[in-house]
Amino acid sequence: MLQKSPLAPARFPRLPPIAGVEVAGAACGLKESKRHDLFAARLAPGTTVAGCFTRSLCPSAPVDWCRRILPRGKAGCVVVNSGNANAFTGKAGDRTIEHTVRRAADLFGCKPNQVYIASTGIIGVPVPPDHIAAKLPGLVKQLGPAAWADAAKAIMTTDTFAKGCIRTARIGDAEVTITGIAKGSGMIAPDMATMLGFIFTDAKIPAPVLQTLLTRAVDDSFNSITVDSDTSTSDTVLLFATGQGPRHPRVTGARDRHLADFRRALAELAQDLAIQIVRDGEGAQKLVTIDVTGATSRIAARRIGLSIANSPLVKTAVAGGDPNWGRLVMAVGKAGQKADRDLLSVSIGGVTVTENGQLRADYDEALAARHMGGRNVSLGVDIGLGRGKARVWTCDLTHGYITINADYRT
Amino acid sequence: MLQKSPLAPARFPRLPPIAGVEVAGAACGLKESKRHDLFAARLAPGTTVAGCFTRSLCPSAPVDWCRRILPRGKAGCVVVNSGNANAFTGKAGDRTIEHTVRRAADLFGCKPNQVYIASTGIIGVPVPPDHIAAKLPGLVKQLGPAAWADAAKAIMTTDTFAKGCIRTARIGDAEVTITGIAKGSGMIAPDMATMLGFIFTDAKIPAPVLQTLLTRAVDDSFNSITVDSDTSTSDTVLLFATGQGPRHPRVTGARDRHLADFRRALAELAQDLAIQIVRDGEGAQKLVTIDVTGATSRIAARRIGLSIANSPLVKTAVAGGDPNWGRLVMAVGKAGQKADRDLLSVSIGGVTVTENGQLRADYDEALAARHMGGRNVSLGVDIGLGRGKARVWTCDLTHGYITINADYRT
Repeated sequence: MLQKSPLAPARFPRLPPIAGVEVAGAACGLKESKRHDLFAARLAPGTTVAGCFTRSLCPSAPVDWCRRILPRGKAGCVVVNSGNANAFTGKAGDRTIEHTVRRAADLFGCKPNQVYIASTGIIGVPVPPDHIAAKLPGLVKQLGPAAWADAAKAIMTTDTFAKGCIRTARIGDAEVTITGIAKGSGMIAPDMATMLGFIFTDAKIPAPVLQTLLTRAVDDSFNSITVDSDTSTSDTVLLFATGQGPRHPRVTGARDRHLADFRRALAELAQDLAIQIVRDGEGAQKLVTIDVTGATSRIAARRIGLSIANSPLVKTAVAGGDPNWGRLVMAVGKAGQKADRDLLSVSIGGVTVTENGQLRADYDEALAARHMGGRNVSLGVDIGLGRGKARVWTCDLTHGYITINADYRT
Repeated sequence: MLQKSPLAPARFPRLPPIAGVEVAGAACGLKESKRHDLFAARLAPGTTVAGCFTRSLCPSAPVDWCRRILPRGKAGCVVVNSGNANAFTGKAGDRTIEHTVRRAADLFGCKPNQVYIASTGIIGVPVPPDHIAAKLPGLVKQLGPAAWADAAKAIMTTDTFAKGCIRTARIGDAEVTITGIAKGSGMIAPDMATMLGFIFTDAKIPAPVLQTLLTRAVDDSFNSITVDSDTSTSDTVLLFATGQGPRHPRVTGARDRHLADFRRALAELAQDLAIQIVRDGEGAQKLVTIDVTGATSRIAARRIGLSIANSPLVKTAVAGGDPNWGRLVMAVGKAGQKADRDLLSVSIGGVTVTENGQLRADYDEALAARHMGGRNVSLGVDIGLGRGKARVWTCDLTHGYITINADYRT
């Protein structure tokens, strides 16, 4: 059992019930460790759904399945197991999906194409067809409105703490709620990395609108974090809207003025969960926030930010508390985005180190080193060319990462 | 002082003189450590030159300078210092180049635009204008035909051994010689990484032909290796042809049939030096050779190979001797190249692990683990879609890498 990340929040948040959602999480023996390993949620009839998935070209069987049914836009339940990712399992993987879907549709009283599935864990080990299906009847009995902490625990793999978040938002005069749980620790990179996220709201929002809202929120959260630049075969974020909360004005499009506060709340929640994943990055001792400004576009800014966030030399410098801004310049240079050495400014902890391509005469290395020595490291790069900006998050690269990934057989 | 890499060759090769080249390498006090830090070579009049440089968009002042003079195609000398990269040093960096070039042109009796310069070491610390120029008169006195080992030592930074290689080739009936030295250990990635390479031949080859030959050789060697995916601001490979060796048939184009053997020898030499750099990768305990076959193109194959070679999860699995082929599949999936899960085959140490997307029934994990436990690890991926293939090299990611880059301030 891994030690809890020093960057973990003090406690799992209190998550109240979401109207139209019943959840359960339990240890069903899918994992040898006897830890929680199965999570399910029953969703009220009429629940709409949106999803974002890994861009890996070798996705897992559950990702293929969810992509196939997503255009229908309706969800009756979601079933998530940890311990085995059902990835790279060939036809056997598809058979397991079939069995799980059939059994879940029966038990939850919905159509097969309303059964959402996600799996995380070991890759390449076939799952017996009944592996998950056989555990569902027992789990269904435990469904209830409040078991969010159990649910969050059931989707953990190398995570050292359970991740949850709640936000409320006004749509018209009504206050709706958004609740999310997530998992992720290693194999975390842009394009969704090895992470799962399940977000539920009691608002009533049509599926196409929900999809637009989710895609935007994911872009600035789960797609703006990286632990190790490795992208998983299983990444999935699903957003369910039950429509069972207080009545609110009808929502027709993603730009609907009634949705302004909901968009804000969803963005905040997605970002909060994403940062929790970075805080649980394998071996992480420090949370690093990287702000890129002055790039030629928002996309260029994010690419530069991720180039810095993925650089082993930057991440080891952070680990060592070394204000080695030359490595930042290197990472800007390799990002493949427009940059001019003589316009570049770098800051550490909000203090400008270099300006227009040269070290400032008043640069105080001791001050920068002190900032780098803390738990929260803030790095800034101004490209000096345009108005594109982006913020990305990562953690440091430490002996702990090597220990977790090399010293133990997986 | 770092311990010598366990993957180092037994000894520095015996490198005989190259007609038309005199070299010197010495400790000139540019480094605090008093180690060798300055290398120069005098080149016979008429020497032609080709070069390949970093694709970083924030290159060092020496890279900018070499790019500027390269179209002239003639070289009179090359001056290389270690200790300071003269990168991100603004106008001060350009002034240092000016001073060094002027002094070198005087001392070596050539035009300023025939003075090639390369620098490696710390980034962002300005070099006083006379820093290198002042040391040149002393170094010139030491020039001789045989000081290759001193030369190779003078360009080292975090390298744990000096890197050299020699090959001979026939052009017509004449036997010409190619000799090269290189440096590189960390910040090594495709697109030339933090590495310097200087290759000399006594053959007589026009500059445009030399450039074509070098670009090809670099593609399958220095651009096919990675230690940590970080690309340096200073990468430089220069190839000089003095034309002072035995008379051979006139060479007119890169496809000249007389050049077949020279092309082979140059490719071998470049690959040998590139692999020496990987063998000296920071913290490296294992050399990893990755063969990708069956991709839709050669470029696709190389991208997939580098995606595997740059994956921290693959590299830590190698470090741990863990035949975790699921991580290989993950790395194929994130490469952004065409792949089909159900056609993929993976091999470890030449033994097929998976075929057509599934684990082989006769897979012997103990055998794969034994191979992964050795110093030389061979990984293979067949994409099953086309005929594109590529070979790339990397090393494992170990505690040593973290120690070198995080535990000590640089």
